[in-house]
Amino acid sequence: MRLTSTALLFLLLLISCNSLAIKPQLLGRHTVQTYPHHTSVSYKTFYFDQQIDHFGFLENGTFKQRYLLNDQHWHKEGGPILFYTGNEGDITWFCNNTGFMWDVAERLGAMLVFAEHRYYGESMPFGDESYSNAKYLNFLTSEQALADFAVLIKALKTTLPGAQKSSVIAIGGSYGGMLAAWLRMKYPSAVVGALAASAPIWQFIVPCGEFYKVVTHDFTISGTNCSSNIRRSWAAIDRVSATGDGLQWLSQEFGLCSSLKTPDEVYGFKAWLQETWVNLAMVDYPYEANFLQPLPAWPVKVVCKSLNFDTGVSDKQLLNGISQAIKVYYNYTGDAVCLNTSQTATGNLGLLGWYYQSCTEMVMPMCTDGIIDMFEPQSWNFQAFSDECYNQFGVRPREDWAEIVYGGRNISAHSNIIFSNGNLDPWMSGGVTTSLSESLVAIMIDGGAHHLDLRYNNKK
Amino acid sequence: MRLTSTALLFLLLLISCNSLAIKPQLLGRHTVQTYPHHTSVSYKTFYFDQQIDHFGFLENGTFKQRYLLNDQHWHKEGGPILFYTGNEGDITWFCNNTGFMWDVAERLGAMLVFAEHRYYGESMPFGDESYSNAKYLNFLTSEQALADFAVLIKALKTTLPGAQKSSVIAIGGSYGGMLAAWLRMKYPSAVVGALAASAPIWQFIVPCGEFYKVVTHDFTISGTNCSSNIRRSWAAIDRVSATGDGLQWLSQEFGLCSSLKTPDEVYGFKAWLQETWVNLAMVDYPYEANFLQPLPAWPVKVVCKSLNFDTGVSDKQLLNGISQAIKVYYNYTGDAVCLNTSQTATGNLGLLGWYYQSCTEMVMPMCTDGIIDMFEPQSWNFQAFSDECYNQFGVRPREDWAEIVYGGRNISAHSNIIFSNGNLDPWMSGGVTTSLSESLVAIMIDGGAHHLDLRYNNKK
Repeated sequence: MRLTSTALLFLLLLISCNSLAIKPQLLGRHTVQTYPHHTSVSYKTFYFDQQIDHFGFLENGTFKQRYLLNDQHWHKEGGPILFYTGNEGDITWFCNNTGFMWDVAERLGAMLVFAEHRYYGESMPFGDESYSNAKYLNFLTSEQALADFAVLIKALKTTLPGAQKSSVIAIGGSYGGMLAAWLRMKYPSAVVGALAASAPIWQFIVPCGEFYKVVTHDFTISGTNCSSNIRRSWAAIDRVSATGDGLQWLSQEFGLCSSLKTPDEVYGFKAWLQETWVNLAMVDYPYEANFLQPLPAWPVKVVCKSLNFDTGVSDKQLLNGISQAIKVYYNYTGDAVCLNTSQTATGNLGLLGWYYQSCTEMVMPMCTDGIIDMFEPQSWNFQAFSDECYNQFGVRPREDWAEIVYGGRNISAHSNIIFSNGNLDPWMSGGVTTSLSESLVAIMIDGGAHHLDLRYNNKK
Repeated sequence: MRLTSTALLFLLLLISCNSLAIKPQLLGRHTVQTYPHHTSVSYKTFYFDQQIDHFGFLENGTFKQRYLLNDQHWHKEGGPILFYTGNEGDITWFCNNTGFMWDVAERLGAMLVFAEHRYYGESMPFGDESYSNAKYLNFLTSEQALADFAVLIKALKTTLPGAQKSSVIAIGGSYGGMLAAWLRMKYPSAVVGALAASAPIWQFIVPCGEFYKVVTHDFTISGTNCSSNIRRSWAAIDRVSATGDGLQWLSQEFGLCSSLKTPDEVYGFKAWLQETWVNLAMVDYPYEANFLQPLPAWPVKVVCKSLNFDTGVSDKQLLNGISQAIKVYYNYTGDAVCLNTSQTATGNLGLLGWYYQSCTEMVMPMCTDGIIDMFEPQSWNFQAFSDECYNQFGVRPREDWAEIVYGGRNISAHSNIIFSNGNLDPWMSGGVTTSLSESLVAIMIDGGAHHLDLRYNNKK
């Protein structure tokens, strides 16, 4: 609530220009989705001819960038344009999960635009071949995506009657929030300000253990012995899986679709569990929701109910608790026939694309020690990571680039950005959590998970 | 004088950080040049391993970027770094012609760095092959050059003992001035401010006739009938060159190294004259100087002395005056054996590189009408220009890109930039000539030509 008001006030402050009152002429596919108790989501889908390479002139091809537009509440006499800077996934999914924009559109008289990020959803620079080789993947960078947004905004303002003098405000969550902040930093002529929700723009430069420390903290405060029992589970898995019988028991206990057989598979199983705990921390919303998975209100608390036993229990008792806990995430609806360890979240995210991005410029060092956090110790090894990237994509990450291009902690020359964070969100470890100036404002939402504020208004 | 003081004050205001006092360990070639009545120019030459492509990861090669460094006056306890953002030419030439930096170094306790622009001087991404094909030329853009500067600054601050907390100020003239301003706009974490001298950052968007209007004005105010007689000369050339005898007379009168024979050559001769008038306007300094050519003080006034006759004289009398005038530019020293119409300026400028840049992102529309200006009418034809570029380089310009990426006139969100202009300089037509905010300050130098303020202090 508090955040919505602050953000609204901010948006109202930014909106000052007037524009002509001419009926917009829009063409496109029309989609309406109605959610119970929510503002209905209704938009037209458009495709914009976008340069494949903004920063070189040899590759002069274009691709169709998808964007969604709603102007039903737009005041053509100077109403603002709220511009969602799409992140690593299908833009319709972000559109449906950014209720904040739908909630405020009428009050602000705003046009809503949701722009898809290149290489995700339908916005593929080389069609189905986009991910087929390093040459085609070469144009998947945040700088290219920001240029897409700036060019699209210019085109909208030039071609939509009445939009010429509309103020544009960038809004995004998570990586999309980083893009919203960066769009304001790099193209302040395109957007008058930005709302960057749960945007870890400093994840490149914070100590590698911070992220998992927050994850662990969420579990620690959500139930007795919760994080302690998860910390103990890794060794228990190792012990149980040391025998063939143990492996079989483990597979059955967790209801895995494919039984564990090799040490590599056990390693993968543990990685899947680790990612699940992370995801649970990210979506620890105070109400039932379906972002990464359908989940109850305060899912981490629900999970921790299965783990509140004494830390002295047997390995199998402990792992039975873990399995109950994990099923809260994977089978809240009760529809899951078995659990698939190769998947942890919705298929709407472009995981391969994000992997490529983290293998190039989005290098976010992560490590665990098993002491401060509840995970198996794993140090950060840039060289090993770089080699893995090279094997996978034929490219190597540049460790310092993100800090140089986006300024690291030295961003005080910029203006008009709200950085909102939730104190439950692991990504707040790399976020801007204290205000840097009068117009670089940080907001911390107590009890907030990953970009909670961008979701629909909810009395909880 | 006035500008030097203002700029100095500005630089002093920007310099606030302190740094450790540790002796820098520098290695490199050492060059000393002493000019009469001037601070001596003495620097070490270094080469920095720079990414060929900052904006993609497939091309992972590096090249040697040259930079020149002088730290003889540097106060290691927080003295600033004045960073010249090299433009389209050999960096040693800009270094020698930017006396302002040498003049103020001692007073400011400043380190001087002159960074060469990629694809110019010795900083060739693909060695001698850099200009051999479109693929190799693909990394010649202002965005790549700015990234080079930002990366180099980061490296200097990280590796030079004492430099970590030094404030860096970007300084540049002409295209280098545009880069100085843009470096502050795009990488404010790298530089605390910029002095952008004669930087036509709006040349992309001003009406196409503005530039030649200023050139004409310079000649109009520098002598009776001066611009009128030049305006009349084009038709006179056409009439005289209509016969073989006339062509021969013309070639002899101008002392051309190669006689004019074809209409194409006459066209080229006129283009050469036009460029010469432009260059004269640019370097109309109040004292003897040798920037593009060795010239007397106020060269346009000297030129106009040969053109102050009545506008009713015969074609040959008129062209005799033009030939006397043009020789002020090409033969002030009296050493020229003949005039070469394929050259108008110093060989230090990388003309082919600049042509490529104007054929891609640096699209500056230019036109003449023969009425407001003194040139033959020529309209601006983007399509024809684009075709010419495609024939020459295999790439086409993007008309709107520079405005989108650098913000056009909407740059008020930025800060700490001085835009200095000379009212005699044709490039002021695309410059920022009125202040936009308290920290985006415009200075107009009365009687100033192209980045006069960056030259050595001179009592004139």
